[in-house]
Amino acid sequence: MYEILDNYSDFRDLKKMQFNKLKKMSNEIRHFLIDNISNTGGHLASNLGIVELTLSLYKVFNLDEDKIIWDVGHQTYVHKILTGRKEEFHTLRKFGGLSGFPKKCESKYDMFETGHSSTSLSAALGMARARDLSKRKHHVVAVIGDGALTGGMALEALNDVGYRKTDLTIILNDNQMSIAKNVGGMSTYLSKIRIDPKYNKFKRNFEHALKKTNFGSGLAESLVKIKSGIKQIVVPGMFFEDLGIKYIGPIDGHNIKEVSKVLSMAKKIKGPVIIHTITKKGKGYKFAEKNPGKFHGVSPFDKVTGEIKSSNKTYSKVFGDKMIALASKDSRIVAITAAMRDGTGLKKFSSEFKKRFFDVGIAEQHAVTLAAGMATEGLKPVFAVYSTFLQRAYDQVIHDVCQQNLPVIFAIDRAGIVGKDGETHQGVFDISYLSHMPNMTIMSPKCTDELGNMLEWALTQNYPIAIRYPRGGDIDKSNLIAQKKFTRGNWEIIHDKGNVAIIAAGRMVQSALQVKEKMQSLGIEVTVINACFIKPIDKKILNKLVKENYKIVTLEDNVLHGGLGTLVIEYINSISSSVKVLNLGFEDKFILHGDVDVLYKLNGLDPDGILKSIISIL
Amino acid sequence: MYEILDNYSDFRDLKKMQFNKLKKMSNEIRHFLIDNISNTGGHLASNLGIVELTLSLYKVFNLDEDKIIWDVGHQTYVHKILTGRKEEFHTLRKFGGLSGFPKKCESKYDMFETGHSSTSLSAALGMARARDLSKRKHHVVAVIGDGALTGGMALEALNDVGYRKTDLTIILNDNQMSIAKNVGGMSTYLSKIRIDPKYNKFKRNFEHALKKTNFGSGLAESLVKIKSGIKQIVVPGMFFEDLGIKYIGPIDGHNIKEVSKVLSMAKKIKGPVIIHTITKKGKGYKFAEKNPGKFHGVSPFDKVTGEIKSSNKTYSKVFGDKMIALASKDSRIVAITAAMRDGTGLKKFSSEFKKRFFDVGIAEQHAVTLAAGMATEGLKPVFAVYSTFLQRAYDQVIHDVCQQNLPVIFAIDRAGIVGKDGETHQGVFDISYLSHMPNMTIMSPKCTDELGNMLEWALTQNYPIAIRYPRGGDIDKSNLIAQKKFTRGNWEIIHDKGNVAIIAAGRMVQSALQVKEKMQSLGIEVTVINACFIKPIDKKILNKLVKENYKIVTLEDNVLHGGLGTLVIEYINSISSSVKVLNLGFEDKFILHGDVDVLYKLNGLDPDGILKSIISIL
Repeated sequence: MYEILDNYSDFRDLKKMQFNKLKKMSNEIRHFLIDNISNTGGHLASNLGIVELTLSLYKVFNLDEDKIIWDVGHQTYVHKILTGRKEEFHTLRKFGGLSGFPKKCESKYDMFETGHSSTSLSAALGMARARDLSKRKHHVVAVIGDGALTGGMALEALNDVGYRKTDLTIILNDNQMSIAKNVGGMSTYLSKIRIDPKYNKFKRNFEHALKKTNFGSGLAESLVKIKSGIKQIVVPGMFFEDLGIKYIGPIDGHNIKEVSKVLSMAKKIKGPVIIHTITKKGKGYKFAEKNPGKFHGVSPFDKVTGEIKSSNKTYSKVFGDKMIALASKDSRIVAITAAMRDGTGLKKFSSEFKKRFFDVGIAEQHAVTLAAGMATEGLKPVFAVYSTFLQRAYDQVIHDVCQQNLPVIFAIDRAGIVGKDGETHQGVFDISYLSHMPNMTIMSPKCTDELGNMLEWALTQNYPIAIRYPRGGDIDKSNLIAQKKFTRGNWEIIHDKGNVAIIAAGRMVQSALQVKEKMQSLGIEVTVINACFIKPIDKKILNKLVKENYKIVTLEDNVLHGGLGTLVIEYINSISSSVKVLNLGFEDKFILHGDVDVLYKLNGLDPDGILKSIISIL
Repeated sequence: MYEILDNYSDFRDLKKMQFNKLKKMSNEIRHFLIDNISNTGGHLASNLGIVELTLSLYKVFNLDEDKIIWDVGHQTYVHKILTGRKEEFHTLRKFGGLSGFPKKCESKYDMFETGHSSTSLSAALGMARARDLSKRKHHVVAVIGDGALTGGMALEALNDVGYRKTDLTIILNDNQMSIAKNVGGMSTYLSKIRIDPKYNKFKRNFEHALKKTNFGSGLAESLVKIKSGIKQIVVPGMFFEDLGIKYIGPIDGHNIKEVSKVLSMAKKIKGPVIIHTITKKGKGYKFAEKNPGKFHGVSPFDKVTGEIKSSNKTYSKVFGDKMIALASKDSRIVAITAAMRDGTGLKKFSSEFKKRFFDVGIAEQHAVTLAAGMATEGLKPVFAVYSTFLQRAYDQVIHDVCQQNLPVIFAIDRAGIVGKDGETHQGVFDISYLSHMPNMTIMSPKCTDELGNMLEWALTQNYPIAIRYPRGGDIDKSNLIAQKKFTRGNWEIIHDKGNVAIIAAGRMVQSALQVKEKMQSLGIEVTVINACFIKPIDKKILNKLVKENYKIVTLEDNVLHGGLGTLVIEYINSISSSVKVLNLGFEDKFILHGDVDVLYKLNGLDPDGILKSIISIL
């Protein structure tokens, strides 16, 4: 099938390989990626963009000694293929199969686990300093995209890198994209460098002129003295040089020969160096080149037509549509995203309300405090963000929003299990990290339709509200009627019978109803309560359940400690009751990658597992 | 006493005031600050440094319409004096008195509450965009220090500011200090600008030469085209210009006339502008000029001699001393701080182990992942950080440390109530935000001596450990014997009598022992348990207490939800017990500023309050 790739076994062989053979091999890797990912789904576009860069790195560096850290980690498929995982590649992102991110347990060549953006520089710098302290000599390389470079922690690291002059090679993989097109002053700045061949032309002309021209002596002297000033003209990457980091580039990231040459050069440079490579996301697959956002993280697709199986009505879509409907009636509503316009369902909003849509780049901290600033001035900001990425802004939510009790709405998408992206991306902590923040209200809709109504209601309130909802759509909407009105802290009793009560949050209400059906068929009645408010909890309903001696079950797709179940038992403990509560949720461990269904089942949170747990306490 | 200041009543009058009068007034303000802060304690040096800047701002801008956001907020004393709070100034940082930070409830001129560093740009940008959307015309100004500018979220904001060209004035208050001397490439870069009069001289010479010299036409053309390239020579702030922000400076921040002129100019500029002002922290008070770090946040002092009442043996000091002792025996131990070298007790360590000490600037996110990188390579990194500031790195602790189960030690200082700095700085969330992280172990020493032993033990382990300890020193060490050996998850039973058990964490054990004495004098015996491990809890001891039907009381200086008490009731609930647990800790609200004693009392967590609560359940 693949002439070179099938005979390839060891990355050490890459060192001896000719450039034309490497070029052929990169084409084969592309085909391999497209063949496989069209079946398994996964991160296609970013991996197509980084084929030559990866080959060049392994040609020049020595993986047995040198350390290479991949920022964000979803572009390590090529790395995985090259380091002995080609045969397992069909198991990508399946439970028990290859992870879509670097994982130490998979290979010793996965040297630092990444997933969230912008961590690589800090980690690599830590490794480089450890090397220096232990007087070892190997190289440390961080590969970071231009999108990730706008994340605050990457900038913090740049500031530190240049200061101590630690030996470190930074590969800036500049494809003008994070998941969507990049934004920000940094992005504009990099574009300027990219597009300007004049820099080089001017450099030659200027040097020539300097030799020929008879300057006055004062100026000539100044010119010598301000060598660094001159450098600002001839070196486009002065931004990095200002921070104390040597800049080389821009170079064509798809030209293995050129990249290898520059990497070999960089190996000899003392101190930190940044190599600016230009690549094309989706390179070599026309559908992905044309629409790299669509082919970023993708479901299985038809590789001939590029068609992706369309998904059902998702929470994200309902959110996006409702935002448009509400924004057309209220000019104070604005939407903020941190480089997740499409994923959060805001694409249409962004074109219909261009001036009221703010994509701040991969910058969750800034996004939250920006929203806080807007809220103080009478706007109604909605920050749409994935649960796992809001972790980045934990402090800002407390310090800038909750402390001033500002009406910022957090639309928390991908709460609960996200599945194939695995432990770095599961949204299983948000209830725990938000519920101990004073002034915070947390809601969760039991179904897609309820999300829209909740958002509408939340925007009429005047305090911080987080609405959390899962990836995907409804499991089973039969018999579900979305609530239209809400009262802060009031739950909905959906079914009221028997002396067992399941208090469920969000989509887990749908599972609770399935459990109810199953139990009814066993002749046991169960009360099902929609904890549409996770904070504050409904004390009236809890008082009643306690008084009437219900067996109480809580059900959530969050870690147990600090979650809904905890809020319930804290309250019940405080009213000195001895009512039994069964808390169902995720145990205190990281949840690996795999299909959502598989993961729920494994954690006893599928309807059968829930049923079993409940029966065990009856 | 103060000729001008005593007759001053309204900031609007500043507009008409002559510069020489303003200069006199600034001297009076300095005296007023020194007179007052030597009595009350507070942030002296930063406020001495910003007197003229504040006066200039209020001369040029219109506080009734314009918005001024003060980053970090502890330099707003001058602002408070100028906006009607001079008479209350003696109540500074006392409970019920003036806050040391901007507070909306104090004045409508405190427009955004700050406390943690680096938030002002995001907030101001949010306000500016709200202004634009509502078609208003006022100015928005952010005042930010060069230290705060290295915080990731400030850099995220800079990236966004320049991109959309929002009208915004940024005052860079460059005093080369955060609390200690600044570090990082950005700091080095700013220094270069500061010291280089050659920039200006060269600019003149170069422009002159351009007019006179007969260039070849190709070059002349290039020169015109690359106007922005030339700008890099003549404009020192190209770093900011690269991001799309107009740079003006550097100017003398103590020259009211010059600053006012530049501010007036900046008001007319469209788009974002940064004004680089050079100030001296501690200006006008020789002791503070000489040692601005010491006079950053200061206790009452003798204004004539500059002597500060020395404090007792603090947890910070014990930590710092122990670090030195341990590091001299184990070369793998390194210390990391985020601009808090002195506060965390690492000053001596930093000089004794220069190469093994890393101050990364105000960059907690980077600090944590740097530590993670070091840990993967065999170092034993200890990140010393205040509880409230570690909030900034919540995601990195989960994603980069806990997920890979790396042996990073978090030495969490200022856990619990810090007192006078108030709600932005209380360390009352850390147990809640750390305890739901898989793989995390949380410890807390009952006394200063135990801290050292804990640190020593923690460094022999091979997983993430957080050790939390309070500001200050011991309350009452009589009868306390520090444990020397620890077993993960094992508590210490200090006193074992009676059927009430107080399970206390950290210094609260000292309060628990005081309560025990009081109860003994009432004829009631109490068991006191040192929950030296907050996570994992000691199930063996809990099983025993439950089995023997103890009344259980938990006691911690953390918010109740998600804290030690929660961990205890979660476990007890899971073993289906109906044992009563009384959870004592902070309620779900922000804790205002005031003396630590006052705040404990107010929240029922002083020995008498605890006693009362316990008696009520007997």
